[in-house]
Amino acid sequence: MRRLRVGILGATGVVGQHYIQALQGHPFFEVTFLAASQKSAGLSYRCALGSKGRACDSVTSVVMDLPVFGIDQIDIAGEQCDFVFSAVSSEIAATYEKLYAAAGLPVVSNASHHRMDPDVPLLIPEINPDHLQIIPHQQRVRGWDRGFIVAKPNCSLQSYLIPLFPLHRAFGIKRLILTTMQAVSGAGYPGVSSLDIVDNLIPYIHGEEEKSEREPLKILGKVADGKIAPAEGISISAHCNRVSVIDGHTACLSVEFNQRPTWQEIVSLWREFRGVPQELALPSAPAQPILYREERDRPQPRLDRDSGGGMAVSIGRLRECEVFDYRFVALSHNAMRGAAKGGVLNSELLYTQGYLGEIL
Amino acid sequence: MRRLRVGILGATGVVGQHYIQALQGHPFFEVTFLAASQKSAGLSYRCALGSKGRACDSVTSVVMDLPVFGIDQIDIAGEQCDFVFSAVSSEIAATYEKLYAAAGLPVVSNASHHRMDPDVPLLIPEINPDHLQIIPHQQRVRGWDRGFIVAKPNCSLQSYLIPLFPLHRAFGIKRLILTTMQAVSGAGYPGVSSLDIVDNLIPYIHGEEEKSEREPLKILGKVADGKIAPAEGISISAHCNRVSVIDGHTACLSVEFNQRPTWQEIVSLWREFRGVPQELALPSAPAQPILYREERDRPQPRLDRDSGGGMAVSIGRLRECEVFDYRFVALSHNAMRGAAKGGVLNSELLYTQGYLGEIL
Amino acid sequence: MRRLRVGILGATGVVGQHYIQALQGHPFFEVTFLAASQKSAGLSYRCALGSKGRACDSVTSVVMDLPVFGIDQIDIAGEQCDFVFSAVSSEIAATYEKLYAAAGLPVVSNASHHRMDPDVPLLIPEINPDHLQIIPHQQRVRGWDRGFIVAKPNCSLQSYLIPLFPLHRAFGIKRLILTTMQAVSGAGYPGVSSLDIVDNLIPYIHGEEEKSEREPLKILGKVADGKIAPAEGISISAHCNRVSVIDGHTACLSVEFNQRPTWQEIVSLWREFRGVPQELALPSAPAQPILYREERDRPQPRLDRDSGGGMAVSIGRLRECEVFDYRFVALSHNAMRGAAKGGVLNSELLYTQGYLGEIL
Amino acid sequence: MRRLRVGILGATGVVGQHYIQALQGHPFFEVTFLAASQKSAGLSYRCALGSKGRACDSVTSVVMDLPVFGIDQIDIAGEQCDFVFSAVSSEIAATYEKLYAAAGLPVVSNASHHRMDPDVPLLIPEINPDHLQIIPHQQRVRGWDRGFIVAKPNCSLQSYLIPLFPLHRAFGIKRLILTTMQAVSGAGYPGVSSLDIVDNLIPYIHGEEEKSEREPLKILGKVADGKIAPAEGISISAHCNRVSVIDGHTACLSVEFNQRPTWQEIVSLWREFRGVPQELALPSAPAQPILYREERDRPQPRLDRDSGGGMAVSIGRLRECEVFDYRFVALSHNAMRGAAKGGVLNSELLYTQGYLGEIL
Repeated sequence: MRRLRVGILGATGVVGQHYIQALQGHPFFEVTFLAASQKSAGLSYRCALGSKGRACDSVTSVVMDLPVFGIDQIDIAGEQCDFVFSAVSSEIAATYEKLYAAAGLPVVSNASHHRMDPDVPLLIPEINPDHLQIIPHQQRVRGWDRGFIVAKPNCSLQSYLIPLFPLHRAFGIKRLILTTMQAVSGAGYPGVSSLDIVDNLIPYIHGEEEKSEREPLKILGKVADGKIAPAEGISISAHCNRVSVIDGHTACLSVEFNQRPTWQEIVSLWREFRGVPQELALPSAPAQPILYREERDRPQPRLDRDSGGGMAVSIGRLRECEVFDYRFVALSHNAMRGAAKGGVLNSELLYTQGYLGEIL
Repeated sequence: MRRLRVGILGATGVVGQHYIQALQGHPFFEVTFLAASQKSAGLSYRCALGSKGRACDSVTSVVMDLPVFGIDQIDIAGEQCDFVFSAVSSEIAATYEKLYAAAGLPVVSNASHHRMDPDVPLLIPEINPDHLQIIPHQQRVRGWDRGFIVAKPNCSLQSYLIPLFPLHRAFGIKRLILTTMQAVSGAGYPGVSSLDIVDNLIPYIHGEEEKSEREPLKILGKVADGKIAPAEGISISAHCNRVSVIDGHTACLSVEFNQRPTWQEIVSLWREFRGVPQELALPSAPAQPILYREERDRPQPRLDRDSGGGMAVSIGRLRECEVFDYRFVALSHNAMRGAAKGGVLNSELLYTQGYLGEIL
Repeated sequence: MRRLRVGILGATGVVGQHYIQALQGHPFFEVTFLAASQKSAGLSYRCALGSKGRACDSVTSVVMDLPVFGIDQIDIAGEQCDFVFSAVSSEIAATYEKLYAAAGLPVVSNASHHRMDPDVPLLIPEINPDHLQIIPHQQRVRGWDRGFIVAKPNCSLQSYLIPLFPLHRAFGIKRLILTTMQAVSGAGYPGVSSLDIVDNLIPYIHGEEEKSEREPLKILGKVADGKIAPAEGISISAHCNRVSVIDGHTACLSVEFNQRPTWQEIVSLWREFRGVPQELALPSAPAQPILYREERDRPQPRLDRDSGGGMAVSIGRLRECEVFDYRFVALSHNAMRGAAKGGVLNSELLYTQGYLGEIL
Repeated sequence: MRRLRVGILGATGVVGQHYIQALQGHPFFEVTFLAASQKSAGLSYRCALGSKGRACDSVTSVVMDLPVFGIDQIDIAGEQCDFVFSAVSSEIAATYEKLYAAAGLPVVSNASHHRMDPDVPLLIPEINPDHLQIIPHQQRVRGWDRGFIVAKPNCSLQSYLIPLFPLHRAFGIKRLILTTMQAVSGAGYPGVSSLDIVDNLIPYIHGEEEKSEREPLKILGKVADGKIAPAEGISISAHCNRVSVIDGHTACLSVEFNQRPTWQEIVSLWREFRGVPQELALPSAPAQPILYREERDRPQPRLDRDSGGGMAVSIGRLRECEVFDYRFVALSHNAMRGAAKGGVLNSELLYTQGYLGEIL
């Protein structure tokens, strides 16, 4: 069986490497094109990685020996792959993602640049798979033929938006105050200095609170009149912190609902929740996307981040809030669900919905 | 000049050792009596500490050679000291603090057992020095002559209650949602296992959220009709976490006021705030109790915990809240302001107000 | 196909839990008997673990619902299993291991008590599988019929003794000075206090240097005259430290040989080394037991500990020593190769050599 | 009393900031000139630091408001200061230190570039104050008038060379194998990535082992024939590691002597050791430069690095070595003794010996 040919933009970065790992032996996709900055262009992937290649010990020689192209060699990309994952910085994304789309290549992006464009789906497959319906409109308006852009939201909110979604659908979320404690891997490599995080924490992550407050409204919004209209009537306040954890973002939330549910209703909604990825049994989808833990001191990053292959959200400590209705703790793996593997899940949904061409 | 003679109950524990450090060369007090559990009784303090004595390298031989008495030897305490600091567990405090008070010894306590007794001041000298006026009533009701009990609140709330106080006085706090990230030293020694905190955090601290929600109301309350009536009209929701930090509790707060102040009003109140300890220039009082930092990524535990000799609260990131009125980050040193040195400040206030006997 | 029935002594401890994980779906063995201290006796394994059961999320209900017996219920063990793994403390091992052996049950032990008994094999299957020939003698002398004791060496030396072995066989090791930097998981749970290891290290581990100096001589020794005679002519000096690493012991070694090899001879011996476990393709054996890494800054615990399923030793930085002949860095997973999975490998060798009864 | 005017080259870096802290209120010196790279030139020190100024909270406005000059503005330096501290990189030192010296300014350097020049003292004031006698020769040969260069050795060896010195003087060191576990502050800021050090260690520090093996020989050498001849008959092998510690380098050493001392002789030599800085009571000199600790698990970085104002070396675990004669653990504060404060001590010695001009 032929698999779709995949390109990785930003292949030598941390997220790029995670994409290559996540696509090892993938049933739908095979990596055939790698792009990075000019200084890597012309090298084999193995050489381009050099000592940065810490995540790639188990990657096959077929991929390690691929040539790396400059990100501006879009023609070659057009010949060598069927769609691309974009793991580049927001600045690079601003320039190149639309060029790739214009060249006929669907772009599944981790970058933040196009996230808030009203015609670009900001996709969490368990929540808003219906937003993909905006794609034909996006192509028409932008004059693109086969290409388009789909974005993945910020890693911080993937720990709590999935569990909030079934509650919002049933009871309506009105107000939400949350504090995140985020892992250092979210800042890339070298990222956070050890002098800033050993015996310390940093109560600030540039741009993170704004994204955590704005992106959920779009994800929970509706497609109407050729754009994705953000959800209304929800206010969110986010406090974002960096802590001494390698992988796994944790959030403490206090929530006020339009209609106050019972404790048991909430836990039942979480335990029974299944989305389209579960119905379609997508390869990267966890069987159970939301895991509620009974222990009083869970979830914890080191113990729970790998649940469901790093794609499940672990929840604990659901209890009444003295100010709002309920409060709880949520955790997900920022480098899996929140980055490359989440992007792969997005592409799996696109593929099975026919957006990437013929379904093989 | 003669100094008051001081006893330490629980002298061999972490907080007990910190008391002894904090009282080295103190102008008002001198350590003359040490009590601990039966297994230390009869040993010199040096021997009783053994390898636990990690905080005492700089302590003078005069103290290191003091004998340790069993905590039940209250008669000897009565002869050898003028008042005691209690750094024992809540269980031991339940039994013994009232016995010491009944024997005529004022008890300045770090333990939680009597904190919510309506006739026991829960003292932060910058906030509620007037609560000391309940002491004669406490003595009368309990039939105590010279002894009494004054308690110090939980360490978590010392990072944020001092900065909230001038705001509450001026504008009225209505609702408060906060998340703490607390240092491991708050759990004592050995306390938190390294397996629980390296590359990890624990989103739970037993009893801490309840204390963080209840104690502030008493501290902000009023003395009336022979009891301290908790403040009304304030609701607080606390999320308490343990993180990989040695010393320094950090809190992220969202606050709703009865009257919304301006940003500048808040910062000015903080910068200008001085309490009774500052007016009296008490030895352990920081010159400026609230430090507002302009940097966007401060306060941080390792950089800011030692400000004001570990007794100042550092604040940063005051900004509008998307849900309530304002939000900010606050930090204090849990083992200094939040424990022994905070207890010493309490005793300095008691002394200058004449509650510990003649002012020398 | 019937699998051998296995008991775990000390089932609720950290190593006991790791045994249960390592035996999930094992082709030769199935867990049927669990023993622990009196306070767990009578409970299901699930209940006995309680909140300590952090390593058992993926364990099947069949095992989680097994009853836990007191360690003194040897008769029941004799009925319910074919051999036992001992993951108890040295003190408990001193009393009980020989009682289990006397009752006819082979004991595959992680405890240190019998390690230096001259008739007990101290087994690393890649190094001294021939030491198992002492077992019939052990049984005869101790009057045991079917039971016997086989011990696993201390976890610290498993990072360097396997790579030293082929070098010793070829060139003779004369002098060895080494320093270990050991993970906190080696101390069990709660083990090392966070206050001792965050922003710190401890240059001492009780008993570890003595074991690191003495056990290798026995492992490299020869069976003769009914006892295992330690190797002669080798002197070892070990410095053992605890560092802020969760899993993975690292060692820095300087070695003097009887005959000085070339750099290339050493690396070739490592790369080509295969032992009996590899020849027999034992289920827990890594395909390549010694991995030499070319990068100048490897091995590193977090990046390399899981190599070969946690059973390979990673080596790097082979270079000339200014004092002895060569120096290098070695690393292995103390909780896998160094504990339960190493014990399982021992039992796999025993099984295929016929020491556990009929080979199914 | 007039103090000597001091310039800091590399004033905005971590070591530069530590110099400014260490010189606050210094009795001999006052900071009057600051130089850094072109991008800081023209700014006030406060502005040039920006958010990098984490070590300077307590620095006076007098210094914070000083202008920063480009490092090439040597003429201005010549007018505004009497000598300079050099806290620049080795590359910058290679170009500029000799220009400052040629301009008549003594250079007290932390950089590695000139350390091995045979006419440049590599100074640890407790060990080789007599090496300063080479300075007139250095000036004559290089054609410098008042200027000269004195270097400070690498931070790693300051933890063990001071305690080795009295032993070498008495018994002769023949062979030394050592392993360091070095703090992340030694790599500057941002330096070591948190992803490399949380739950990890790095068994490699570029150039560190070579310096640790070569510099001690020069420091223990003798001035003869217009050069400093390295000590002979000593061989040293160093293994250098980076560990998750903020400040404080720890070393484990095995030592062979020409004449084997007794345990008591070694400890007595350490306890009684006083050098020229102690005899002269230099302001930055610790009263007792070598502290031997009896506890079996000391020294530890977090507990012992600040001993003697960060200038004492703490030793522990002296015991017989199975291969050489003795082994022990040594620790010093790499950012104090090993960097800026060590440089200040060097300048204090130079001052009192008259090398910096008239003694005020």
